[in-house]
Amino acid sequence: MVQILENPTAKQPSISTRIEKILLDMFENVCQTVEEIDGNKLHEKRWTRDEKGQWIEGEDNNGILYFDRALRNGNVFEKVGINYISMRGELPPGLTFQGGDVVMTDPKNGAASEKGTPFFSTSTSVIINALNPMVPTAHVNYRYFQIGDGTQPGSWWFGGGGDLTPIYLFEEDAVHFHQVHKEACDKHNPEFYPRFKKSCDEYFYLPHRGECRGVGGLFFDNLQSDNIETLFSFVKTCSEAFIPAYIPIVKKRKDMEFTEQNKYWQHLRRGRYAEFILLNDRGVRFGLTTGIVSAQSVLNCMPGEAFWNYNDQPTSDSPEAMLLDVLKNPREWV
Amino acid sequence: MVQILENPTAKQPSISTRIEKILLDMFENVCQTVEEIDGNKLHEKRWTRDEKGQWIEGEDNNGILYFDRALRNGNVFEKVGINYISMRGELPPGLTFQGGDVVMTDPKNGAASEKGTPFFSTSTSVIINALNPMVPTAHVNYRYFQIGDGTQPGSWWFGGGGDLTPIYLFEEDAVHFHQVHKEACDKHNPEFYPRFKKSCDEYFYLPHRGECRGVGGLFFDNLQSDNIETLFSFVKTCSEAFIPAYIPIVKKRKDMEFTEQNKYWQHLRRGRYAEFILLNDRGVRFGLTTGIVSAQSVLNCMPGEAFWNYNDQPTSDSPEAMLLDVLKNPREWV
Repeated sequence: MVQILENPTAKQPSISTRIEKILLDMFENVCQTVEEIDGNKLHEKRWTRDEKGQWIEGEDNNGILYFDRALRNGNVFEKVGINYISMRGELPPGLTFQGGDVVMTDPKNGAASEKGTPFFSTSTSVIINALNPMVPTAHVNYRYFQIGDGTQPGSWWFGGGGDLTPIYLFEEDAVHFHQVHKEACDKHNPEFYPRFKKSCDEYFYLPHRGECRGVGGLFFDNLQSDNIETLFSFVKTCSEAFIPAYIPIVKKRKDMEFTEQNKYWQHLRRGRYAEFILLNDRGVRFGLTTGIVSAQSVLNCMPGEAFWNYNDQPTSDSPEAMLLDVLKNPREWV
Repeated sequence: MVQILENPTAKQPSISTRIEKILLDMFENVCQTVEEIDGNKLHEKRWTRDEKGQWIEGEDNNGILYFDRALRNGNVFEKVGINYISMRGELPPGLTFQGGDVVMTDPKNGAASEKGTPFFSTSTSVIINALNPMVPTAHVNYRYFQIGDGTQPGSWWFGGGGDLTPIYLFEEDAVHFHQVHKEACDKHNPEFYPRFKKSCDEYFYLPHRGECRGVGGLFFDNLQSDNIETLFSFVKTCSEAFIPAYIPIVKKRKDMEFTEQNKYWQHLRRGRYAEFILLNDRGVRFGLTTGIVSAQSVLNCMPGEAFWNYNDQPTSDSPEAMLLDVLKNPREWV
């Protein structure tokens, strides 16, 4: 169990320390839950930078708490990737802030020799692929970014969300996942759920396939307000919603019977997931292009086994075709 | 066997018809060779456009000869994708020519309602993944593009090349593949082989992994000259070089013994191949974004089965580590 050390002389922890804590709690809780269900420990890797600024394995003592945990071919899970990072630093030259986002000014400039803009960033990312094709894949990520001390208007923002990707559609699972997330949103702002549900359908979409990645959930980016406490509280509720939204579905489906054909379809759908990650996901592309985190961490979200086949269209009226219909025509689940 | 009908009143076939013919010959020869070795027929799909300009299955009578052939889980091959296209048409609005390439002017504009620039384009693409991990994957593509009747300077160009991606390194195979391609080049211009070998190492490179995709071969793009006959003749020789460069390697390796560990490493390397295709390949990204061909055709190049694992670094001095060393430090093979 990793703990964030608070400054003993400060009367109240800073907002950045409090956000670090809730995301680290989420990280630890999800890891523990996965290990309990699977019966295997996640493998952990910690990261630090070498003198040239390259990411290498090791403990960091320069304001970075950064580690990945992973599992492959467990008892219940095919592949799990869970990453945590909390980083106080300076943006490397070549990166800057624009419209609430970190963007590249010059992709050729990768060296971190000059001093850049000071920032604080923290994030927890989770992706869970189960062995049983009746268990949907889940993805969740919450993140916070702050420029300087975050006191200037527009100098901090939240991003994140959670979404569900079934291999076979159980409508009650989609309803449950959305219901839990809607309740989390509704505690804070009744406009949040419809807005972030729509963003999720739009973001997790493969235009070349004309398919959504899954049945959605929540997605938000560059979320700001006049009052950071309001959004802190909202993101805390969301980060706590993932386990009750997803884990009951895993427990319900993990021992269901399945066929070779079900497994084949699962692998084809993993192929679609890989396509989304590598072709469409903005965060993955940004991470791999900038080197702001290690490529191995970024690709911790890849599925374990993915198939491609030229002829992968299911026969009509099959359970596989039912799933495709929902992916092509996103529904309102609650 | 598909045949291009030549205009019986013309005394000599046009250059575009002659290029169509050599690429179609290549397509048919590679298909036939693959079927002979595998013992299975390739599945064929023909494409045409519907009234809205969307690609659908069917025969085309509007100057387009476009079909894909594919094989999955044969006796020798895991996945083969072979595409041929020859198209006379007008560039859809939103696409234009720039610096010898087709580029997008406005990615949102996908409709083909207005008349655009007339062009002719033909291409054969081949990707061959074998079941036995001792057999390297091969990729080859030759293509020709022409604006109008191609009589204006800079209004036509060739692109293409062939490259080899071993799972396990047999140096003699890399030498053979390069030797055959070097001889093809040397018949036309002694500067071609070193130039296109270097381009190949540079193009088939995964920056986020710091690895080349394979041991290279040839790659050229936007190749022009004062005399189209010279380059026609060069590309013809290259298109004929692929079978003698690759097929002897397949025959030599396809029945070698292998272990579960070899198969696992093969699947991990397929994951790298998928990463290159989806993250780095300019042609794939262009094809998927523009819809200039169908997404299914573009993704006919995907591997059959790809694995990812957080810990995929081989132990030092292993055959797997030997391959990685060559991918990180491209060699001169001939």
